[in-house]
Amino acid sequence: MSNRVLVADLSRHQGEMVTVKGWVRRTRAVSAELAFLVVADRSGEAQLVLSGSSATTLPSLESVVEVYGLAVTSRSRAFPVEVQVESMVLLAPSESLPFPINKPELEVGLELIDRFRPLCLRHPRFQRVFRVEQQIILHFEQFFAGQGFLRVSTPKLVATGTEGGAELFSVNYFGDVAYLAQSPQFFKQMLVGSGFERVFEVGSVFRAEQHKTSRHLNEFISLDIEIGFVEDVNTLMDMEEEFIKSLLPSLHQEFGEAIKCPSEIPPIPRLALEEAQSILEKEYGRTPSSDGNIDPEGERLISQWAEREYGVAAVFLHSYPRPIRPFYALPGYANNTLTESFDLIFRGQEITTGGLRQHSLPPLLQSMKERGLNPEKYEFYLQVFRYGMCSGPQCQDTIFKV
Amino acid sequence: MSNRVLVADLSRHQGEMVTVKGWVRRTRAVSAELAFLVVADRSGEAQLVLSGSSATTLPSLESVVEVYGLAVTSRSRAFPVEVQVESMVLLAPSESLPFPINKPELEVGLELIDRFRPLCLRHPRFQRVFRVEQQIILHFEQFFAGQGFLRVSTPKLVATGTEGGAELFSVNYFGDVAYLAQSPQFFKQMLVGSGFERVFEVGSVFRAEQHKTSRHLNEFISLDIEIGFVEDVNTLMDMEEEFIKSLLPSLHQEFGEAIKCPSEIPPIPRLALEEAQSILEKEYGRTPSSDGNIDPEGERLISQWAEREYGVAAVFLHSYPRPIRPFYALPGYANNTLTESFDLIFRGQEITTGGLRQHSLPPLLQSMKERGLNPEKYEFYLQVFRYGMCSGPQCQDTIFKV
Repeated sequence: MSNRVLVADLSRHQGEMVTVKGWVRRTRAVSAELAFLVVADRSGEAQLVLSGSSATTLPSLESVVEVYGLAVTSRSRAFPVEVQVESMVLLAPSESLPFPINKPELEVGLELIDRFRPLCLRHPRFQRVFRVEQQIILHFEQFFAGQGFLRVSTPKLVATGTEGGAELFSVNYFGDVAYLAQSPQFFKQMLVGSGFERVFEVGSVFRAEQHKTSRHLNEFISLDIEIGFVEDVNTLMDMEEEFIKSLLPSLHQEFGEAIKCPSEIPPIPRLALEEAQSILEKEYGRTPSSDGNIDPEGERLISQWAEREYGVAAVFLHSYPRPIRPFYALPGYANNTLTESFDLIFRGQEITTGGLRQHSLPPLLQSMKERGLNPEKYEFYLQVFRYGMCSGPQCQDTIFKV
Repeated sequence: MSNRVLVADLSRHQGEMVTVKGWVRRTRAVSAELAFLVVADRSGEAQLVLSGSSATTLPSLESVVEVYGLAVTSRSRAFPVEVQVESMVLLAPSESLPFPINKPELEVGLELIDRFRPLCLRHPRFQRVFRVEQQIILHFEQFFAGQGFLRVSTPKLVATGTEGGAELFSVNYFGDVAYLAQSPQFFKQMLVGSGFERVFEVGSVFRAEQHKTSRHLNEFISLDIEIGFVEDVNTLMDMEEEFIKSLLPSLHQEFGEAIKCPSEIPPIPRLALEEAQSILEKEYGRTPSSDGNIDPEGERLISQWAEREYGVAAVFLHSYPRPIRPFYALPGYANNTLTESFDLIFRGQEITTGGLRQHSLPPLLQSMKERGLNPEKYEFYLQVFRYGMCSGPQCQDTIFKV
């Protein structure tokens, strides 16, 4: 028996005897002496032809089979090459399915999708989600590693939350209480100040938000970067935009039509939050909320507006007010009631949050106090600021100039 | 002022005015009018020359400075190019250090290393640990992605442990109890059976082992792979060996001397656990333990033996007895009191564990019962075996053969 051939490679094996392994996705008995099977493996789907007495022994759908046969040109449009089966082995039978999974769309509700998750994942639409995710993550890593970033893995079991204790899962840590990290923020900054300057992480984060909306997740994979010696929040937005633009061509090439991904986009507009609020007021008659923040509906509308005005359903919002940003956000250079921070909104969802950090210890301590945080509990984090943080310009001091 | 130049790139800027930013690692005042500074950035170290009145204003060690000056050829052996400083800005001062970090070795105990972690990480020896880790992980991802593996991220908050509840951290999950995943095992298998066939993960795992040994960790990053349609445990060992061999040349090139990493190694010997026990008995006079397992000292000795006999301090041990392997381990083809499993032992430490899985539902259920596990609690995992698992040969059944 020959080595296994993936169905995507069948065309390179026409006229050869091949072994194919996979899941029986569809069966069609044409007569007592002719049947067609579609078998799926990780590379795609292939058509198998059973003739003679073998056409009467069709395995149940989703059974796993190994077939051996001749790869030949087919008259089928969907499958230019098919396999004339000479022998078939049942590697693993399938029980009868709770619902069909061989339709173009999986026509079942979320409850069944959850309950039969491994089965539903065999549907090409679900498979694609994972493949897109892989492509984004691997590109992210290559992109930033190529720019001198170090890939790091920060602790997930922590003693203190990033934002001061809200929305943390607590863990029984040998009788003590520990928490699941809601962000790698502190550790990223510590690593930047530890001399690495540029770090990135692809890792789990946890948020104890009891929810049922698409804007909340208890557990997700966060793509994080952190850099030192940055003076302008536009540098960060430039970097993110450059990353996105470098990602699109390969995503478009592989999944373009299926996920409506273009190969290039116009520049993403950048708006101060206040400007965005004015636009929402003028264009959509919405009054800004009292804390100056933008709500989910506002994020949806400003994405619509960006699509109409700039041809891209994304917008960088910057200059968020201090009270709605974390204690470590750097106050605005021009207006210190604001921050040098930004969010990237895409199709109505915040997909990134970023900003310059307060790297000077006295104002950082002051900011913690204002929020009722006890600096003693954060000494593990604050220490790096005592021994030379690779800051932006906010705490610079000329030693001499010739 | 020119753009920043990394110190590793200074030689390409000789004769130019450059800006350098970094940490003041060493200072040496030669006279009232001449001083040398060594500044470190993420790329390495550079020598700065202060002359005239500027030589009297030396910043404290580990302060972060930005200097501007002329890059010139130096007579120093360590630094072929140095910067004649014209101006220096203090970006962030450092308090006085608890201990010197500019020695070839950091001469402090573990307690101080823990307490001053961000500071200690600036030492090149600690920096290297992170850089080696990055190189291994990125290579791992590229290697397996290149062989048709999908990068996945499995849940870390789980309802049931992989091995049946031991050594799990418990999490308060909105009033219920959840656990931190001690391994992605179940999810890897489910994804393989969901049609992906080959998956890998780089992710956090958690073990509630109260410890103070180098063989235990509460939290670590696990590099995992899982494949379907595998029939021989040697295939898995081949794959791992191929991965290791592909990794060594680049590790050797970048870190070889510092971490004693060769660019190639002889084939790694493969021993049944029983053979290893005989060797330990004959060569080192050690009697095997009653459960047939090998202990830490045995792992250390068998690595020594492999180094002596095969020129590599690593050994694959296989054919572990069933009682000391998980319930999902496939029983041995030739002897069903053993398993088709292996560990890779390197310098006395188990660095990998692997094996073929039981993919047929009835014996899998039987194995769970024997260990007192309630299959109902594992239905989320067992489901994939009902609907066609991409198995090895253990449950095959010929449908027909022409």
